[in-house]
Amino acid sequence: MPTNTKPQIHQTALSGRADEMQASPIRRLVPLADAAKKRGIKVYHLNIGQPDIATPPEIMAAVHNFEEKVLAYGPSQGLLALREEIKKYFAHHGITITPDEVIVTTGGSEAIMFALMAIGDAGDEILIPEPFYTNYNGFATMSAMKLVPVPTHVEDGFGIPARAEFEKRITPRTRAIMYCSPNNPTGAILSHKDIEMIVQIAIERNLWIMADEVYREFTYDGGHHTSILSYPEVADRAIMLDSISKRFSACGARIGCMVSKNKKIMDAALKFGQARLCPPTIEQMGAIAGYQTIEKFLDSMISEYQYRRDIVCEELAHIPGAVFTKPAGAFYIMPKLPIDDADKFAQWLLTNYSHEGATVMVAPGDGFYASPDKGKQEVRIAYVLKEADLRQAMKTLVKAVETYNKL
Amino acid sequence: MPTNTKPQIHQTALSGRADEMQASPIRRLVPLADAAKKRGIKVYHLNIGQPDIATPPEIMAAVHNFEEKVLAYGPSQGLLALREEIKKYFAHHGITITPDEVIVTTGGSEAIMFALMAIGDAGDEILIPEPFYTNYNGFATMSAMKLVPVPTHVEDGFGIPARAEFEKRITPRTRAIMYCSPNNPTGAILSHKDIEMIVQIAIERNLWIMADEVYREFTYDGGHHTSILSYPEVADRAIMLDSISKRFSACGARIGCMVSKNKKIMDAALKFGQARLCPPTIEQMGAIAGYQTIEKFLDSMISEYQYRRDIVCEELAHIPGAVFTKPAGAFYIMPKLPIDDADKFAQWLLTNYSHEGATVMVAPGDGFYASPDKGKQEVRIAYVLKEADLRQAMKTLVKAVETYNKL
Repeated sequence: MPTNTKPQIHQTALSGRADEMQASPIRRLVPLADAAKKRGIKVYHLNIGQPDIATPPEIMAAVHNFEEKVLAYGPSQGLLALREEIKKYFAHHGITITPDEVIVTTGGSEAIMFALMAIGDAGDEILIPEPFYTNYNGFATMSAMKLVPVPTHVEDGFGIPARAEFEKRITPRTRAIMYCSPNNPTGAILSHKDIEMIVQIAIERNLWIMADEVYREFTYDGGHHTSILSYPEVADRAIMLDSISKRFSACGARIGCMVSKNKKIMDAALKFGQARLCPPTIEQMGAIAGYQTIEKFLDSMISEYQYRRDIVCEELAHIPGAVFTKPAGAFYIMPKLPIDDADKFAQWLLTNYSHEGATVMVAPGDGFYASPDKGKQEVRIAYVLKEADLRQAMKTLVKAVETYNKL
Repeated sequence: MPTNTKPQIHQTALSGRADEMQASPIRRLVPLADAAKKRGIKVYHLNIGQPDIATPPEIMAAVHNFEEKVLAYGPSQGLLALREEIKKYFAHHGITITPDEVIVTTGGSEAIMFALMAIGDAGDEILIPEPFYTNYNGFATMSAMKLVPVPTHVEDGFGIPARAEFEKRITPRTRAIMYCSPNNPTGAILSHKDIEMIVQIAIERNLWIMADEVYREFTYDGGHHTSILSYPEVADRAIMLDSISKRFSACGARIGCMVSKNKKIMDAALKFGQARLCPPTIEQMGAIAGYQTIEKFLDSMISEYQYRRDIVCEELAHIPGAVFTKPAGAFYIMPKLPIDDADKFAQWLLTNYSHEGATVMVAPGDGFYASPDKGKQEVRIAYVLKEADLRQAMKTLVKAVETYNKL
């Protein structure tokens, strides 16, 4: 050993971000669910936003018809034909964009990562209404940035906080306000007035806006979601994040996009995109077919989710003390249940409970909060199962709360 | 405007890493190539590792036969059936791994990102022989880490540097030694003795080893590459990075993997994997078919590349003053040409040159170096075209060097 070698015992330890990285509250209980299934128990998955609705046959046909001889790299910004379809899709929503204002990403996940990395460095902050999609926590850790939660509350249907709640959390490190509407996990929709408020703060405080609009069309009872791309006054600071996963019931495709009219942020995203070469080619062909035939399947899909939402709310009403508001959009609900600890409850459901040979998997609420000790009595329920399964799952859950509280 | 509002004029600027992020030297000249094509000029693409070899029909058949009703999320660590095939594939190479020691990633790119983020934080350093695959620069910037280059030289065939060259660059921030063998962009292969040296340094200085083995089978003239997974003494510190892109001529699939016997790093990678949910599902089915039928197509593919390598070397020998060694592996060569500036030359090829209606696109060498002012006379050539095209492309290049030097 050379004399200048000093043993550095802990050098092969993991990074700080690896240690800090949360295990997904949606997926971390999967081993317990697998064990339950091995014991012969049916597990209803209300924990993950994986719909049982068939992927439209047009999308599958495009995959089956992929006839290139070489499965080659595509453009880093995504296939032009797909970006043209996305342009048309937005035109249908009354929004004018060009294909150059779109970069196709490997899932909405990558769109969020590109946006975060493009606007912030280690230690920079993003304001976000809480609870929020749990994987934002992971993306922030990976990019060494910090999510600054702005609290919303189950008691008032997770309504947007007052302007002062945002303003008092702005620091010199604040880079953006991020939101998801229709919201995962709460199902709340930001009104035009809500978005107006965020737009005004962003302009006055010179911040970016990151809008996750994955559930754009998932609005019920005649409700409507307004895209951030509809606000010309923030065209230079708006970053729209999107995915086909839910809209086309094609979660395994891993196709999303980032849209902005700010050329410098699109240039930055493209450089990130070039490093990872391209999004998957075959699924882009599927996505093209999906956008071309969206009118054939989308309305009936949304009606089905509205129907499922009503079933979930109907059953939840049978739990004395449960607190929730009927969600206006997306396909999640985040009720507060009369239980001591949702994480303990979710584990218990998988390890110690069954009713008529079945149990339920839910996502514990605390994983959707950045603030400690929040969401301890909340669970996220994804209403992604067909009626019969959903009813049975909810009845099992209702019964489980009763049993759990008698332990 | 509230009185506490201070205008923060530059807050919507881009991040430091967005500014620092290099444009891909492989792809940044694409607009010039597109313009040349619009002028009716044929452009031979030697710039990008996109083979023209057909993707094996078994892989395409698996895509065409994908019959699931719902294109659903897969497991975050990848389909078990694929991880089982990867296990069998390594067994065939005499290496024993379990499916739990594999995480399927979205391309080799994601495997590299997961490994970097798992072992380092902002400012941490990775030692790497230079020149290296240019996108490592991007991944380092994205993860806010620093590549510390250890120089190799075209004059001696880019042979591995002496041990002291690595040792003198180790600091308390050094987390790993990374290498790619067979090498992109040089085509050099690390011998068993070379890897032994890295293994010894890693053990003595307690570092991780990141081994990019994407070109594992691309060895010529009876040469051989030894996997880092063959060294039991570093089983706890070795991270193997891989991709099907080249092996299956399926670059657009975006399927790679990370393999390690270190459980804590696999747990960390899985947490990163859970945040992005899963790699694309359909292409994983293709990859399964690829591994099941690899013996049908791999040998003839390798022979074809060896033949192409010989063509490239034969033609390069016609350039007086060109410096290069016949590469032992991969499908790249990085000659030093008798030109003043490879970047200027590569642009000139696309904007001002054509020979018999055609020109050539090459990747300027400086983008493969982290050190400033290196590789200025080098270009990376990917020999990914069939014989007739490759010969024509190389003749065009030889002619171009002559013309350029008469300007």
